[in-house]
Amino acid sequence: MRNRYSVGIVGCTGAVGQEMISVLKKRDFPIAQLCLFASTNSAGKKVKTPFGEIKIEEFSVEKTQHLDFVLLAVSGEFSKQYAREIAKGKAIVIDNSSALRLEDDVPLVIPEINAEDAKGAKLIANPNCSTAILVVALWPIHKAFKCKKVIVSTYQATSGGGAPAMEELREQTKNYLEGKPVLNKKFAHPIPFNLIPQIDTFQANLYTKEEMKVTWETQKIFHEPEMLISCTAVRIPTFRAHAEAVTIETEEEITPEAVREIFSWAPGVQLVDEPENLKYPMPLTATEQFDVEAGRVRQSLVFGKNGIDFFVCGDQLLKGAALNAVQIAEIFITEEV
Amino acid sequence: MRNRYSVGIVGCTGAVGQEMISVLKKRDFPIAQLCLFASTNSAGKKVKTPFGEIKIEEFSVEKTQHLDFVLLAVSGEFSKQYAREIAKGKAIVIDNSSALRLEDDVPLVIPEINAEDAKGAKLIANPNCSTAILVVALWPIHKAFKCKKVIVSTYQATSGGGAPAMEELREQTKNYLEGKPVLNKKFAHPIPFNLIPQIDTFQANLYTKEEMKVTWETQKIFHEPEMLISCTAVRIPTFRAHAEAVTIETEEEITPEAVREIFSWAPGVQLVDEPENLKYPMPLTATEQFDVEAGRVRQSLVFGKNGIDFFVCGDQLLKGAALNAVQIAEIFITEEV
Repeated sequence: MRNRYSVGIVGCTGAVGQEMISVLKKRDFPIAQLCLFASTNSAGKKVKTPFGEIKIEEFSVEKTQHLDFVLLAVSGEFSKQYAREIAKGKAIVIDNSSALRLEDDVPLVIPEINAEDAKGAKLIANPNCSTAILVVALWPIHKAFKCKKVIVSTYQATSGGGAPAMEELREQTKNYLEGKPVLNKKFAHPIPFNLIPQIDTFQANLYTKEEMKVTWETQKIFHEPEMLISCTAVRIPTFRAHAEAVTIETEEEITPEAVREIFSWAPGVQLVDEPENLKYPMPLTATEQFDVEAGRVRQSLVFGKNGIDFFVCGDQLLKGAALNAVQIAEIFITEEV
Repeated sequence: MRNRYSVGIVGCTGAVGQEMISVLKKRDFPIAQLCLFASTNSAGKKVKTPFGEIKIEEFSVEKTQHLDFVLLAVSGEFSKQYAREIAKGKAIVIDNSSALRLEDDVPLVIPEINAEDAKGAKLIANPNCSTAILVVALWPIHKAFKCKKVIVSTYQATSGGGAPAMEELREQTKNYLEGKPVLNKKFAHPIPFNLIPQIDTFQANLYTKEEMKVTWETQKIFHEPEMLISCTAVRIPTFRAHAEAVTIETEEEITPEAVREIFSWAPGVQLVDEPENLKYPMPLTATEQFDVEAGRVRQSLVFGKNGIDFFVCGDQLLKGAALNAVQIAEIFITEEV
């Protein structure tokens, strides 16, 4: 029998925080007690959860000291300020923000890939959503054929901007269709029936930070600091599943058949590649699924026998955030003795 | 003073046909007479155009024999059956379908690139929309730095499926927001808040025909049959501007500054690349523009000094179809003597 654990979620009212509660239940996480923390606005409110009604508490480091796990679904600012302090207590802290992902002493973990990096750590970072959805499919290919070059174009959902961004897509699309003025608050430009080739801020090299996260975080998770990876990150008007077109060049010769075989058993990946039945990865089917869909596998016309093109689509709030965070916590679950 | 010409549009009621009428006017094409042809459904109807009220005629090859130009905005089937026959008459035929684009005796023309290929031809093919929007920006780079590898991911609007596809996006998005069943007729899957990584049919190599059009047509237009080009073509829920993320490897060393300089003067291209002002190519701004927007220019992280990433967005119905067709006709305009 497994031990049971006290778990705290900070930022429990956000899109990711909400999914964390749901994922803990769906994966039958051995919960002894669930504590929910949010800002002063929500503190005091009682919310119904699959673990019963829970009163939201205002966050303080002190209130986390008795917990076994603290999942942070908050801003980078917040994590920078509090994550290390919380981790000084009993809890293992899993931080969904980007603030600490590249710190040398903070492992960045996709359990299907580098669970061992989490061992012994008190503070673990949860990767960027596009990175997570990419690497869960890319890693088993890399292990078998060694990726030299990786070129990614993303089709990212509004959920990456949180619940208000999803609401903006819904509300402003309605306005558009009704001929009313279309506004933008969460996005730099109106999002209905548009796309925005900018996510996060521009860096000195003119890639956006979101694009560089895919490069930097993949290199860190794979322990391949020299791997050549570029990304174009684009926001499109979808709700909560990110898709990515991926072209790779590999050290070893590679075939579509071998890649499909890998996708058919790779943990966290579901092979969806039946062109004859019009089946391929799509937000419509990947949404609310734990596994990332991978398909459209074909021999690269550019890299020939050493290249593959494929397409992935995964739920941004699940593998891209809440699911991976809970999976990290699961690494530490032990049997009762 | 320029000579004036009799122009026929076959398929005048479709999305592209409608734009052809409008583009002829906007570019002040020297029209002597405009004849509109459509299927029996529309024949006999009178339509208001910028050239006055015109009665739509039922198409017959005979009725085109006195015309100077015939623009075909019809299906590949139709073009296969009639294009060569019409071209036996007086008219120069410009075919927007994909049916004849790769025929050796049919030039495939982007006037900014290979206008000379049109000289002396009676039947000229208008390229695929994604190809046209890509190559108008890619060509001047190729001329200066010689492209070796081109990797493209598209973000294609519903207009590529014609007016009914755009209407399906509008109607079904409304249904989605009202909680009604979301249907799909023009698309293989529901399009609202979704994407579909399939455009046209699958080929033996598991690329779609749309993807192969980008490869084959670019090679033909550039007279570079060996150029390595791959494409992932994805339909997204936008109305009428296609965007494309492009990664290139060049023979010569290349810099973002040089590419931006090229985009600033290249015909048919508008440089939109001001990250600091949140300006980059988008459907919102590229829609209904003749020029293709190009921006997000940066040194490739994968190909280093010999590589560039950039992003283009152009109106699918204009440079991707009607505008380019009219520009081809313009090659043949002569001065009155």
